[in-house]
Amino acid sequence: MGLAAIKDSSNIQLTDNGQLRHFLSIEGLPKALLTEILDTADSFISMEQQSVKKVPLLRGKTVVNLFFESSTRTRTTFELAAKRLSADVLNLNISTSATSKGETLLDTLKNLEAMASDMFVVRHSQSGAAHFIAEKVTPNIAIINAGDGRHAHPTQAMLDTLTVRRHKGDFKQLSVAIVGDILHSRVARSLIQAFTTLGVPDLRLIAPNTLLPVNVDALGLRVFNRMADGLKDVDVVIMLRLQYERMQTALLPSQHEFYQLYGLTRDKLKYAKPDAIVMHPGPINRGVEISSDVADGKQSVILDQVSNGIAVRMAVMSMTMGGQMTQQSDSLKRLGDEP
Amino acid sequence: MGLAAIKDSSNIQLTDNGQLRHFLSIEGLPKALLTEILDTADSFISMEQQSVKKVPLLRGKTVVNLFFESSTRTRTTFELAAKRLSADVLNLNISTSATSKGETLLDTLKNLEAMASDMFVVRHSQSGAAHFIAEKVTPNIAIINAGDGRHAHPTQAMLDTLTVRRHKGDFKQLSVAIVGDILHSRVARSLIQAFTTLGVPDLRLIAPNTLLPVNVDALGLRVFNRMADGLKDVDVVIMLRLQYERMQTALLPSQHEFYQLYGLTRDKLKYAKPDAIVMHPGPINRGVEISSDVADGKQSVILDQVSNGIAVRMAVMSMTMGGQMTQQSDSLKRLGDEP
Amino acid sequence: MGLAAIKDSSNIQLTDNGQLRHFLSIEGLPKALLTEILDTADSFISMEQQSVKKVPLLRGKTVVNLFFESSTRTRTTFELAAKRLSADVLNLNISTSATSKGETLLDTLKNLEAMASDMFVVRHSQSGAAHFIAEKVTPNIAIINAGDGRHAHPTQAMLDTLTVRRHKGDFKQLSVAIVGDILHSRVARSLIQAFTTLGVPDLRLIAPNTLLPVNVDALGLRVFNRMADGLKDVDVVIMLRLQYERMQTALLPSQHEFYQLYGLTRDKLKYAKPDAIVMHPGPINRGVEISSDVADGKQSVILDQVSNGIAVRMAVMSMTMGGQMTQQSDSLKRLGDEP
Repeated sequence: MGLAAIKDSSNIQLTDNGQLRHFLSIEGLPKALLTEILDTADSFISMEQQSVKKVPLLRGKTVVNLFFESSTRTRTTFELAAKRLSADVLNLNISTSATSKGETLLDTLKNLEAMASDMFVVRHSQSGAAHFIAEKVTPNIAIINAGDGRHAHPTQAMLDTLTVRRHKGDFKQLSVAIVGDILHSRVARSLIQAFTTLGVPDLRLIAPNTLLPVNVDALGLRVFNRMADGLKDVDVVIMLRLQYERMQTALLPSQHEFYQLYGLTRDKLKYAKPDAIVMHPGPINRGVEISSDVADGKQSVILDQVSNGIAVRMAVMSMTMGGQMTQQSDSLKRLGDEP
Repeated sequence: MGLAAIKDSSNIQLTDNGQLRHFLSIEGLPKALLTEILDTADSFISMEQQSVKKVPLLRGKTVVNLFFESSTRTRTTFELAAKRLSADVLNLNISTSATSKGETLLDTLKNLEAMASDMFVVRHSQSGAAHFIAEKVTPNIAIINAGDGRHAHPTQAMLDTLTVRRHKGDFKQLSVAIVGDILHSRVARSLIQAFTTLGVPDLRLIAPNTLLPVNVDALGLRVFNRMADGLKDVDVVIMLRLQYERMQTALLPSQHEFYQLYGLTRDKLKYAKPDAIVMHPGPINRGVEISSDVADGKQSVILDQVSNGIAVRMAVMSMTMGGQMTQQSDSLKRLGDEP
Repeated sequence: MGLAAIKDSSNIQLTDNGQLRHFLSIEGLPKALLTEILDTADSFISMEQQSVKKVPLLRGKTVVNLFFESSTRTRTTFELAAKRLSADVLNLNISTSATSKGETLLDTLKNLEAMASDMFVVRHSQSGAAHFIAEKVTPNIAIINAGDGRHAHPTQAMLDTLTVRRHKGDFKQLSVAIVGDILHSRVARSLIQAFTTLGVPDLRLIAPNTLLPVNVDALGLRVFNRMADGLKDVDVVIMLRLQYERMQTALLPSQHEFYQLYGLTRDKLKYAKPDAIVMHPGPINRGVEISSDVADGKQSVILDQVSNGIAVRMAVMSMTMGGQMTQQSDSLKRLGDEP
């Protein structure tokens, strides 16, 4: 399941009419669609303030959380999003359960499809897993990518852009810096695509060369090795999590030295604009990527990201479900048209 | 908890008026009742095609999945069935949780009853466990047997007969072959009872002698040791799963030799009628009981079985709940009648 | 997190108008409020007899079961109570999940708050944990204490007093004996406060001196070392569970000797009034604290306690949620009043 399988994701994510039917990656999605996701999420946020935080958009639908890689936090946000849309939710930890009886993964998925599931939320350690399922296994089930290897984490990118838009109003004039372990980060890959599509004019990466992808120049972004340079006058600082589990070689001298050079402290934050916001996908490593006073400080919008995450997931879930239903009724209509 | 406890299950499964109130085994249930289960399940299948797959038949009811033996697949289908009936579902893995504080099983069950549970779905490695609970422990809770030792797996038998009926229309003229490890299979035991009750005129077993029950002649069925003989002109081929976990002695020369003799391949399938359907309770062992091209081929209805499994479980759950409620209101009425 | 943090719990449990907004301990709650809990629970018990056991009081609300100490039984009762109030329930076993990625407990709680959770049901091995969360971490989330160290288990105390009231009608004339490991029992601490507040005139403790708190005299209760003396003519006998896991030193000669001296047998029960009821918080250790014939006998109301437990938890959940909502709308109003 290499990167080849991930090509042309633009097509399989959309219905014939351009509606979202899977949400696999930001790549290939037009600006109008990303904006529609943000607008839909905004409407769910205002709903959250109401006393009953529930809408019947997915009533009677079955959402299966397929986590091949465990993540309580991400699963929890998807579970809450699905329940607030009134769906029935099934949590399956595939790594431990299915293979013990010798069943293949394909058989497990086909079985879940046969149980009249409507949506799979897929988390997998291999890049391309969600695409593979959407393309080859169960195309009529809405597939949401909840993180696949180093490839993509598109709902995280949308909740981050939503958080930026809610605080800064617009993307048109913004300087945004992404800081840290770019190389191993699926969040960074999805974020770069989202900010680029949404029209951020000044997108910067800050990292040591060992934590930058080899083809970083091809991205056409400004790249910095020093915080003093990269953070200068930015509106948004996005810290990444150090992905210990994905580092296979010693790319860093030490955690302590990383913090000295790239950890976001009050001093380094002064390089940014005074009203710059600070973001982090969580869970944060205090004293590694970020100091506690910055994480808990006035400029931090880290907990807003969490709130916005539920709304973005509700938006993506309701939009893909709508797309699947349109596609399927169109297919039926076409069948009916045949002589 | 031996087989003696399982006697006379016909009585405890039914209300005074002959309605289903527990579903423990096929044994002793009249043909009309089995047909009612199939008809009810059929109505739930047409519901599955609708956009909202939910009915309020079990709204406000509490269904407890009591799995003393873990089975993600079976638990999942019962959980989905209960949720589509709008019940609240509680999953309890009893083996790990309750006994750690030294509580007896009876106390655990009595406690769950006191929490106003309405239905227990019971899976247990010992034959007779579900009967024992229905008879001795909590008779006023609807008990569904989700597999007990080598004894019975009645919902599997009903979903299999439903699948046959949906593909063949009727049982009256059918030749059906059950192939493989009959000896250790609770599925086979329940299937034989179901097909016999529903009037299949030609029911055959195909297995090596070591995988047949010692009293196989008493069943009055045709028994074959060779696929070429047993599959001849059948309408339905039901492959069983090799129950490694239940084989205590070396009853088989090797997996490979089993496949050579009894594995369903395209060649062996030619002995059956050209429109014969192929079934398997899943999870399938590809290349052990069945070849991949047959499992995925045109005659395979294995995934239909999975879909039908949800509908059958919904049928049995709603019918037993109805029976329990009738029984209890009748009992109250009788109490009221007393002078 | 010592006992100092638990001081003044009366204030943080109540809104400015005296409504319940957290339920952390019995201490400091007025008699009228305890009575309101009992009355509300009574109304839920009559609901349980109905065919649909569900009310929409918490519809659209998210209840998180935060269990730092695992307890299937207690979690199950809270989960059922929440579902019967139509809430969405999230079960988190914090000990295993959150800290594995290095996140602090405070960050986990703040994240759950940001996901628009409405209620935390907290079980923790440290005394004061629930208070700490209510006071310092997430005051706007209704916190229910489901047992914290040796400190308190207030829902257990309320279900016990409810059980007494339903069987004895009133607290005014009662003699109640609490028997066993008082020293390590959070149930006993909460029970003593509840019975005292509700006006039981004769409350007795029966235990060996090694299982009594050192400051037992300060409680102003009658203390007995012998069952023959302590049980004399009581209306209610409450047996405690032997808390093996909390005994750090050898305070008991042997389990067998404990049973001889303090285990409730039919013989010892004769000291009590003939219509005395027998209670135990469960799970019971048969032959350690209580004989099987007494546990299953006519005077035992142990399973009533379980049923009443669901109703009491529903009462406390709906009352605290109402209190939180009042408090928050009052705060908003005050903000609006400012010039």
